[in-house]
Amino acid sequence: MPNLFMFEKPIGMRDTLPDLFRLKESVRSRMAKETKLYGYRFLDTPSLEFYETVGQVSAIKDQQLFKLLDKEGHSLVLRPDMTAPIARVASSHLLKEGNPLRMAYSANVFRAQEKEGGRLAEFEQFGVEMIGDKTLSADAEVVTLLTSVLQAAGLSHYHITIGHIAFVHEVLRHYGGTEERAGVMRRYLFEKNYVGYREYVVELNLPESSQQILNKLPELKGNEEVLDLALELTEQNVGSTALRELKELAHMLKKAGNNSHLSFDLTLVSHMDYYTGILFEVLGDHVGFPLGNGGRYNELYRNFGQDAPATGFGLRLDRIIEAIGAVDAEEPPLCVIYNEAGQFAAMEKAAALRAEGKAVVTQNIDGIAEPDTFTKNFTNILYMLGANGLGEES
Amino acid sequence: MPNLFMFEKPIGMRDTLPDLFRLKESVRSRMAKETKLYGYRFLDTPSLEFYETVGQVSAIKDQQLFKLLDKEGHSLVLRPDMTAPIARVASSHLLKEGNPLRMAYSANVFRAQEKEGGRLAEFEQFGVEMIGDKTLSADAEVVTLLTSVLQAAGLSHYHITIGHIAFVHEVLRHYGGTEERAGVMRRYLFEKNYVGYREYVVELNLPESSQQILNKLPELKGNEEVLDLALELTEQNVGSTALRELKELAHMLKKAGNNSHLSFDLTLVSHMDYYTGILFEVLGDHVGFPLGNGGRYNELYRNFGQDAPATGFGLRLDRIIEAIGAVDAEEPPLCVIYNEAGQFAAMEKAAALRAEGKAVVTQNIDGIAEPDTFTKNFTNILYMLGANGLGEES
Repeated sequence: MPNLFMFEKPIGMRDTLPDLFRLKESVRSRMAKETKLYGYRFLDTPSLEFYETVGQVSAIKDQQLFKLLDKEGHSLVLRPDMTAPIARVASSHLLKEGNPLRMAYSANVFRAQEKEGGRLAEFEQFGVEMIGDKTLSADAEVVTLLTSVLQAAGLSHYHITIGHIAFVHEVLRHYGGTEERAGVMRRYLFEKNYVGYREYVVELNLPESSQQILNKLPELKGNEEVLDLALELTEQNVGSTALRELKELAHMLKKAGNNSHLSFDLTLVSHMDYYTGILFEVLGDHVGFPLGNGGRYNELYRNFGQDAPATGFGLRLDRIIEAIGAVDAEEPPLCVIYNEAGQFAAMEKAAALRAEGKAVVTQNIDGIAEPDTFTKNFTNILYMLGANGLGEES
Repeated sequence: MPNLFMFEKPIGMRDTLPDLFRLKESVRSRMAKETKLYGYRFLDTPSLEFYETVGQVSAIKDQQLFKLLDKEGHSLVLRPDMTAPIARVASSHLLKEGNPLRMAYSANVFRAQEKEGGRLAEFEQFGVEMIGDKTLSADAEVVTLLTSVLQAAGLSHYHITIGHIAFVHEVLRHYGGTEERAGVMRRYLFEKNYVGYREYVVELNLPESSQQILNKLPELKGNEEVLDLALELTEQNVGSTALRELKELAHMLKKAGNNSHLSFDLTLVSHMDYYTGILFEVLGDHVGFPLGNGGRYNELYRNFGQDAPATGFGLRLDRIIEAIGAVDAEEPPLCVIYNEAGQFAAMEKAAALRAEGKAVVTQNIDGIAEPDTFTKNFTNILYMLGANGLGEES
């Protein structure tokens, strides 16, 4: 007996119907092709990992993990991101004497949702990891590849904002006075709640000069000039290493001709707490959430016994597709409708056309329940109903 | 602190390293291209489903399901196959007035394993479902598509054995006398334990004629002639509808020129208990397990409130790749190694080559820990170390 909930899916789970599947496939394939041109190699890891190895290392909050127990009572998680699993693989197999390693992935990741509010609990993430290279050239390469990949996806309106987590940490800690206050301010910045941030800064009763600098922080967004503005604003040693890195990065990207979609945002913080340096976020024009993000994470590999600096990005394929918008529907294949007498001629005809690369549906007329609705799926129908196998085109 | 098990993965879980990833991608892409030529459309469904909707309907045993609870206490499963999820989607969205629907998928499915014995707990299944068409033409189409897909995958040595579950049921039930005995014999046949099967038949103390027929059953394997042999052997009404279907199928496949990799096996039974008619199994030359299987299942859609006959196949991509054997390693990309002075010339050079579709790694020499091991990854290296950006080829 069919049950009442037979068509239901778990919270945040979606089907990918054929039109969307085709679009995802085409976008993913263009992005992957571009990524391979930079010498990045794709790999995959299991959907399930041990909580103790990958789950704990991931930057995703514990309550967002799908957890289950295996037969031996070990706690497993559905991977919430690919950065930690790739760190596991790279550390155990691929890293050779600390040399740079360029890895890419396009894989489903899982984040448990509290309620059905449109947030996906499973989605495809496309990303790269550049592991083992501490130089700013690696950060520049990842940002350049990111713009190439977004272009290849077919996005024309997107924006990459670049910041530096060490700058934010240092400024908030130095002028705020304590790590606790810095944490509260970081939270406001993460939420982009600048009113809350400024009210909190007032509450702190800080020296006038500190308060001024903290109040100026949310304005440090825009083109390269904000980096100079920030250097002037803060005392020489507060965040200056970070700012010099950003200036050098800006220089590299500009010389490579890559700056039309870029800007800087010195308030940028992330929900990923493993970033240690330059970080960035990708925004689309018509999409409420970031398309992706990335940055440098030089500490994560310590969890796997390696001292490997790394940088990378992850993009959400669903949001990129939302940002691209609608596409034309696929041209339906030719449909050959045959009866018993026309069957073999229909098969021959279809085989010949398929050999030329043309898609053909062959359909026995006895298998059709409602011809009028069935034929609506096609624009081009060939009937092969004659005893001699000759047909007529509709 | 790194823990001792940091590189461990759950039982039956595997990483797909770049060489294997590339091979899988290429094989899957060729198989998908062929499938699309037959007008099948790809779709995807969530990895997690409700146990009550999809888990129970699936033909996979309960103890092989990965189960977990969602935040609201509902029991979820990691999908153990794609046939049941596609039945859910097709029944709720896609089936239009019972008309034929051609769907395809290539997706990871999950089967919990008791111990680490080489059996995968997550693997990619490539398959099609032909839904809503009761005719034998649909069975013939699925077998023809199966051979086309195997050819496209690059397999030359494979074998498809075709049987009919209704024939097995009827013969065992009729000559064995009870459903219970038929069940025991079916189990022996499934395990291909013909010694056990024959011993059991002797134990039953059946009439001589029944015993003779049951003893002959395991010999009913081979080309089309075994169908006639079976017709002669059994009384007219036992399994004869099934045999006539098989003869008609054999005729269709032969006329379509598709019979070099085919044979019949009238003992064929499946671990999938939803089959109702013609069924088949794909074997490779050097692989111990079937590459895949398929057949007609006319009852499954009742679980989703539809009366839709269906047929299809599912192939295991991992076993197909095992059957294909090793492939040549990928040609590594050109590697341009630069220093600060050569950086921008290196970027220009790489951009020009990538625009021609050539893969290029650009690597800052300061980012390399051990040049000797790093350069071993490449066969073609260009050094751009001069102040004027001129390089020399290694």
